[in-house]
Amino acid sequence: LLSSNQVKHINSLKQKKFREIYRQFLAEGSKLVKEILESQYKVLNVYAIADWLKQNEDILLSNQVSFVEVSLGEMERITALSSPSPALAVAEIPEMTGPPTLINDLVLALDDIRDPGNLGTIIRIADWFGIKTIICSESSVDLYNPKVMQATMGSAFRINIFYTDLKKFLSSLSPEVKIYGTFAQGDSIYSTPLEKQGIIIIGNESSGISNEISLKVTDRISIPAYIKDSRHTDHAESLNASIATAIICSEFRRRMG
Amino acid sequence: LLSSNQVKHINSLKQKKFREIYRQFLAEGSKLVKEILESQYKVLNVYAIADWLKQNEDILLSNQVSFVEVSLGEMERITALSSPSPALAVAEIPEMTGPPTLINDLVLALDDIRDPGNLGTIIRIADWFGIKTIICSESSVDLYNPKVMQATMGSAFRINIFYTDLKKFLSSLSPEVKIYGTFAQGDSIYSTPLEKQGIIIIGNESSGISNEISLKVTDRISIPAYIKDSRHTDHAESLNASIATAIICSEFRRRMG
Repeated sequence: LLSSNQVKHINSLKQKKFREIYRQFLAEGSKLVKEILESQYKVLNVYAIADWLKQNEDILLSNQVSFVEVSLGEMERITALSSPSPALAVAEIPEMTGPPTLINDLVLALDDIRDPGNLGTIIRIADWFGIKTIICSESSVDLYNPKVMQATMGSAFRINIFYTDLKKFLSSLSPEVKIYGTFAQGDSIYSTPLEKQGIIIIGNESSGISNEISLKVTDRISIPAYIKDSRHTDHAESLNASIATAIICSEFRRRMG
Repeated sequence: LLSSNQVKHINSLKQKKFREIYRQFLAEGSKLVKEILESQYKVLNVYAIADWLKQNEDILLSNQVSFVEVSLGEMERITALSSPSPALAVAEIPEMTGPPTLINDLVLALDDIRDPGNLGTIIRIADWFGIKTIICSESSVDLYNPKVMQATMGSAFRINIFYTDLKKFLSSLSPEVKIYGTFAQGDSIYSTPLEKQGIIIIGNESSGISNEISLKVTDRISIPAYIKDSRHTDHAESLNASIATAIICSEFRRRMG
């Protein structure tokens, strides 16, 4: 049974303010809870229905995680999703060191990504393409927002994600580090040289890469729209931020094949 | 001023059942309404606040579209979005002929895409990459669902989208037509031959390509995950359906240079 204090505490973690006070966050849904139990994250408590607890007894015991059996009706009082799930974990937000100073692989840098679904999807793309580090500007949506966690499908637990002053971070890098940014007038990603290491900047959903960050970009790239017939040049004005990220990461990795 | 019959009629169009009865749908938001006014679609009525009507007087008059001035409070009673927008159009669902029988370009075929955001995003990707035709299985989410319309950002008005029995459609094609489908064990899209024309099947969000459709696939392809270090092979289990579509379309178009 859930106490009213537990309900209150869990619900408070849906807000960034309380996540920062308690240094805790929620991971909800059967898959996400299993993923976090198998990760390096410290899980403080699992709230789950009897069936789920029974099915996942081994992993709970081997991780020595404390758990509380709740009814689906009780889950409704604590869920962060549109409908209650069989399991919800409360976990510790790990202390992060500063972002890396030596860039010897591809790194994504997010310049003010605001949509939780986009951030989650970008983390999942990074995980697929073996990109281990993401740097987020301080104004980017919070990684521990329940909607972000949901959209990552567990990939967040395998990637190092830092929040920092993006301009300062880029300024601190060795001048040899390539900084790629997507602009309508950039060179086609299909033909321009792409290095095996460097920073790929992803801009805000509506305004793109900010002026101060664009000054740091060393290589302006673009994803060309395909126009078969020059009489019909009308096409989508832009691609969604996470779609553009996927196409860019795919092309970088293809070259490294 | 809006009559209660108008409010009732507009709200009914949020449901597929009534869209099919009236053969009408909603396009909401300033950008989407402008896009539909510039398209081949027949707009029956525009409901908008005074400012928007003033700004868009020219396009309304040149298209001879009837319009109703409403307050933002009235927009709240008819909006299909989470917050009311300055303009909403009621338009006619066009009569579609059957899908094409001759395949002389790339065509997307959606095998049971259920998420409105995914369908909208896939349509926007197709528009970007100059893919003019999308075939949807009958169980796919309805194109005229307001959430799909929203996610297309107007691209739906530039693409031919057909709903049909996908298995029958694929069976009716000439046996020379390539039918590409993504499978975990398929050949890497980065190295396998890709034709300039053919069908690209996109599977359902959770179950992928159905068994009966997979029998029709002539070329099994895959998007390889990037694994740098064979000691760390753990990565995202899959990519979202619209993310996979973007990567595949990008690679087809890259080859066509």
